[in-house]
Amino acid sequence: MKLIFDTDPGIDDAMALLYLSKLPEIDLLGITTVVGNADIATTTRNALFLRQQFGISAPVIRGAGETLDGVSKPEPVIVHGVNGLGDIDIPAVSEDDLQPGTASQFIIDTLRANPGEVTIIAVGRMTNLALALRQDPAIAGFAKQVIIMGGAFGYAGRSGNITPAAEANIHGDPVAADEIFAANWKVVVVGLDVTHDIILTSDYFATLAAEAGANGELLAQMSDHYARFYLDIMGLAGVVGHDLLAVTYLLRPDWFETREGPIVVVTEGITVGQTIQMPSSRKGGHPSWAGRPAQLICIAVQADEVLQHYRQTLAN
Amino acid sequence: MKLIFDTDPGIDDAMALLYLSKLPEIDLLGITTVVGNADIATTTRNALFLRQQFGISAPVIRGAGETLDGVSKPEPVIVHGVNGLGDIDIPAVSEDDLQPGTASQFIIDTLRANPGEVTIIAVGRMTNLALALRQDPAIAGFAKQVIIMGGAFGYAGRSGNITPAAEANIHGDPVAADEIFAANWKVVVVGLDVTHDIILTSDYFATLAAEAGANGELLAQMSDHYARFYLDIMGLAGVVGHDLLAVTYLLRPDWFETREGPIVVVTEGITVGQTIQMPSSRKGGHPSWAGRPAQLICIAVQADEVLQHYRQTLAN
Repeated sequence: MKLIFDTDPGIDDAMALLYLSKLPEIDLLGITTVVGNADIATTTRNALFLRQQFGISAPVIRGAGETLDGVSKPEPVIVHGVNGLGDIDIPAVSEDDLQPGTASQFIIDTLRANPGEVTIIAVGRMTNLALALRQDPAIAGFAKQVIIMGGAFGYAGRSGNITPAAEANIHGDPVAADEIFAANWKVVVVGLDVTHDIILTSDYFATLAAEAGANGELLAQMSDHYARFYLDIMGLAGVVGHDLLAVTYLLRPDWFETREGPIVVVTEGITVGQTIQMPSSRKGGHPSWAGRPAQLICIAVQADEVLQHYRQTLAN
Repeated sequence: MKLIFDTDPGIDDAMALLYLSKLPEIDLLGITTVVGNADIATTTRNALFLRQQFGISAPVIRGAGETLDGVSKPEPVIVHGVNGLGDIDIPAVSEDDLQPGTASQFIIDTLRANPGEVTIIAVGRMTNLALALRQDPAIAGFAKQVIIMGGAFGYAGRSGNITPAAEANIHGDPVAADEIFAANWKVVVVGLDVTHDIILTSDYFATLAAEAGANGELLAQMSDHYARFYLDIMGLAGVVGHDLLAVTYLLRPDWFETREGPIVVVTEGITVGQTIQMPSSRKGGHPSWAGRPAQLICIAVQADEVLQHYRQTLAN
């Protein structure tokens, strides 16, 4: 399974990267970075650190530091810490390890070199993907599928996190996200409707630390900060494994229930960043959704299977 | 239980009115009409007809024919028929039976005459209530509670019906609805999240026709038209008892699960008419929701109990 992982590490991004590093069936072709959980310098530094720490051979390619909506947002230090990884100690890494070029060009070149074979998993703002599509719209036809962590469609009351209507990755660049959904490729949305079923408790992290060696211990350390956010602000006893669930979808789509239909992102007003799907099962049409391809949103997940699979994979 | 019923009959409005007429614990003080399922002349004529047909003593008072958003919408003849009641034969009724005055003034006078005692159930556009609040904002403190049928919050994928984001009553006058939610009275929202659990099948109507006499038969006749809409457009084998469920909430709130928090209505853009709640359980704030009172939305209902109660009530 050839894969590009587009990411803004980020604590749950680190969880997903460790997962990827342990999956022999994944052929990770590149890690592209984007602004989001921290600024682009920080997320890129973190990607380089995690690559080295987790023994990943795929290159890191720096991506967009500015989003397409032209709106700068405060960094979510309350969630991911000042350094983006829960304020653990991060050793100095050299930018010499960066692969030259831009993330968007890497995406274009990689898709064109492997027609129909490459999945993109994007777990941050969708800026790099949108830049690639703007530069070379035909690449939509070259991707196998695009799996994104983002959005919220109201299932189980999950309408938003950064606002009552919007999820943070989409809100972070609603213009880019809307272009991703409008493009003629297969997009699967792993949003809050399902990610909030993946709760990693302190007991679970203790098990990871015991079973998954130094890197399991590292995730547990990072997650102390993340857990305080979830407890204080969200009232949750545990942290949400948003990004790792996008990886699980690639491996085991049969663990997910989905709904099909075109998706629009609200790009202005108080609901900016909201994702809205017109279910294909509904007759009639609405101009804003007309002519867009049907995409899949995940609406339910077998959470116990996911948590068990993640733990077992990391223990190997 | 003193009650004002604000309505735009409408087939499911007729279902709710027959329900009310059979409930001895309800002291129906007035039926106020509003544009919605048909124009104001038609909904008012229908209210007068149903009052006479169902043997209701409460007066009918004509309400708003224009909404506060200044946007005229096509009449939903595909749903409720040209005459608003599924194109059954409606005998001529005299407007002499109308009580003089406006709906909004009736609401003000009735609330002020019965401080803390009167519930308003509003199952159409919220124009009359908003006009009353604009004219006399203090009436919010005189109402016992306001139960509305309207809105959609995404539970079980129920985000909208008139658009993928908006429910028809709210979309019909989003300006009025937003003022209702902002006012300092207790609002309970019975929206698509729960009404779509109340499916009246053809078998169920056959039972009503057999058990509930001529008026049960009349509902069954009206619902033929309504059922074609639900089957052809929504893919549902049966009709949705939207408005009757607002009545059930008044009687048996214990059959409902609710979520508390301030509510905002989107008043422009592609999501116009969308209802968004900021759950009170969430820490942090957002300016658009700040300073608004916490209202209740219904997020689950014991549907079997409701359908059984409706049937038994009509059979008496």
